Amino acid sequence: MTMPPPARVGDPFAEIDTPALVIDLDAMERNIARLAAFASSAGVKLRPHAKTHKSPDVGRLQVAAGAVGLCCQKVSEAEAMVAGGIADVLVSNEVFGARKLDRLAALSRRARIAVCADNVEAIEAIAAAGARNGVRINTLVEIDVGANRCGITPGEPAVALARLIATKPSLSFGGLQAYQGRAQHLRSLGERRAAIDHAIEVTRRTVDLLKAAGLPPAIVGGAGTGTYDLEGSSGVYTELQAGSYVFMDADYGRNKRADGKPYDTFEHALFVVAAVMSVPVPERAVIDAGLKTCSTDAGMPEPRGIDGATYIRPSDEHGIIDLSKSNHRLALGDRVALIPGHCDPTVNLHDWYVGVRGYGTDAARVECLWPVAARGAIF
Amino acid sequence: MTMPPPARVGDPFAEIDTPALVIDLDAMERNIARLAAFASSAGVKLRPHAKTHKSPDVGRLQVAAGAVGLCCQKVSEAEAMVAGGIADVLVSNEVFGARKLDRLAALSRRARIAVCADNVEAIEAIAAAGARNGVRINTLVEIDVGANRCGITPGEPAVALARLIATKPSLSFGGLQAYQGRAQHLRSLGERRAAIDHAIEVTRRTVDLLKAAGLPPAIVGGAGTGTYDLEGSSGVYTELQAGSYVFMDADYGRNKRADGKPYDTFEHALFVVAAVMSVPVPERAVIDAGLKTCSTDAGMPEPRGIDGATYIRPSDEHGIIDLSKSNHRLALGDRVALIPGHCDPTVNLHDWYVGVRGYGTDAARVECLWPVAARGAIF
Repeated sequence: MTMPPPARVGDPFAEIDTPALVIDLDAMERNIARLAAFASSAGVKLRPHAKTHKSPDVGRLQVAAGAVGLCCQKVSEAEAMVAGGIADVLVSNEVFGARKLDRLAALSRRARIAVCADNVEAIEAIAAAGARNGVRINTLVEIDVGANRCGITPGEPAVALARLIATKPSLSFGGLQAYQGRAQHLRSLGERRAAIDHAIEVTRRTVDLLKAAGLPPAIVGGAGTGTYDLEGSSGVYTELQAGSYVFMDADYGRNKRADGKPYDTFEHALFVVAAVMSVPVPERAVIDAGLKTCSTDAGMPEPRGIDGATYIRPSDEHGIIDLSKSNHRLALGDRVALIPGHCDPTVNLHDWYVGVRGYGTDAARVECLWPVAARGAIF
Repeated sequence: MTMPPPARVGDPFAEIDTPALVIDLDAMERNIARLAAFASSAGVKLRPHAKTHKSPDVGRLQVAAGAVGLCCQKVSEAEAMVAGGIADVLVSNEVFGARKLDRLAALSRRARIAVCADNVEAIEAIAAAGARNGVRINTLVEIDVGANRCGITPGEPAVALARLIATKPSLSFGGLQAYQGRAQHLRSLGERRAAIDHAIEVTRRTVDLLKAAGLPPAIVGGAGTGTYDLEGSSGVYTELQAGSYVFMDADYGRNKRADGKPYDTFEHALFVVAAVMSVPVPERAVIDAGLKTCSTDAGMPEPRGIDGATYIRPSDEHGIIDLSKSNHRLALGDRVALIPGHCDPTVNLHDWYVGVRGYGTDAARVECLWPVAARGAIF
């Protein structure tokens, strides 16, 4: 059920089998350094989200650059990160059910682990798992700062949950989870700022109430690739949880900066490299990367470096490069690099990263093969 | 990189961990029997498409019910089916590149294998691989019968490719691939019939020309779950390649019969069983199945058995059950069964099938755990 890797270390770029999930290592390393530098200058901690890369190899580079640990979305994702050497993981999500909570408790013997809760019954279940397993589980209260997904109402209702956590011998109160996911892809900076201003305001109020109650939050976590600088300079958030910045997908590339130009703080560093397998007519090249190779939930992947070309009409294992508005023509076997529409679910379709040094140059070579260790980690 | 299975054989339904990919075995078996009975009565062969299920366990049931073999879309998918005991596989797709073609040649020593081509250069490459590996590769000509994806123009251009194949000592001419994929989800029977009438007409003309050229096609293959009865009763097609019928997804469920009622020949037999992990407000239940558990390329999955409920706003690991138009309410830990919007890419997100006998009854139990053996088989 795991495919062999599509290349060997040392292979020239042209010998990578297709379709392959290729990292431009130089660009990725610059992205990692850029966000680390921002966090450092803003005086906040960085805890990148591993749901983007699902790779302890990438995660260890983020930690080496100064991150305090990683976020995960599932217990199984956290297990894969801990197994790969990550010592501090926040499951930035609700976890319910004895089987999952027992695994979380076991994991908290092997690493520094935290989890989120937004409900009395959920807190009771986590406390019971901690007691059953003889461990103390660090638990954050998730508040709804405008995303309308999970999270309790900020303010007093959140404080009541924090108080409940603090009464449990098998729990410790870890702080607040305050992620505004719906703000990340608002296209204008003005819209993003308005959404995050609201998130900051309700979070600040909740933090003040917690302090007054004698429960100062150790972590106030949130922020994504679209808004990290807003939360990061708020004076309220203590940890940034951006994930996509490491690879930067086409969807984030459609965000706009203050001056209206495309958001370009981070570079596209992840590509699906596909090959042409049929050219029925000159303006239509069919490539070997379809729905099972590229996710399309946040828009189509974008062919890189072919003026006027678009990726259209994906089926399970076919994608069409439409050249009707391009002067470029493609031949059987030609390579096409696609910028994923949405990195996170695209990565989850692949078993291997092919890390390339000197991407885009004649000297481009495979430097590393990294397993997508938490691919399929839905439990 | 492969997750442990979410259940054990013998477990009651309620003990399956979530999210899980669950087969209603009784419904699946009825679907398999129904299409087999149609093919038998129509006097055509059945070669179900394995891209739907990616499972030799399911494929062997189809063969046991009379299928002549399976279709696959990739060489690696075919390798997984042959490894699981399927003796006859048609790769109903173009394959290009020496590495993939060498694997195809090696596989053709272990099973009856065929592949498609729509281009002179591609045929030369397959012939070279056959010669290099000392095998004869059965090659079909794919014709474009209206899908505007792969395939050469029907008629004389297709005959010219068949002639080229017949001249190669390392190839044998296997017939025609004539799949009209774009017809499958046209909602009215009238639209589907018009599209398939055209496909039948151009295919019939090509078959006649091939016969006149002394190259009668052994296989004339095509058809999907939306139109199999049309190709099957055409007198032209010899093999039906439907795949989705085995599980039947929500998208096919939106097709209409001649009388305008929903298309119900096949039963929904595959479900993503998820659990509620947060209920921030009574009309919004958040479940543990998002984009990495359910594909959304052909529309959202549909919650089964909850009047008025819809699945909305999926993110990576969250899905929202919107109950604002339902009287039903959900509590933490409640199970929700989702009918996949599109089975094929949903299956590809999972490592395991959980086969349940007596699905929907109090006696429902896990009868089998089957690996999604060709998950990630994109090479």
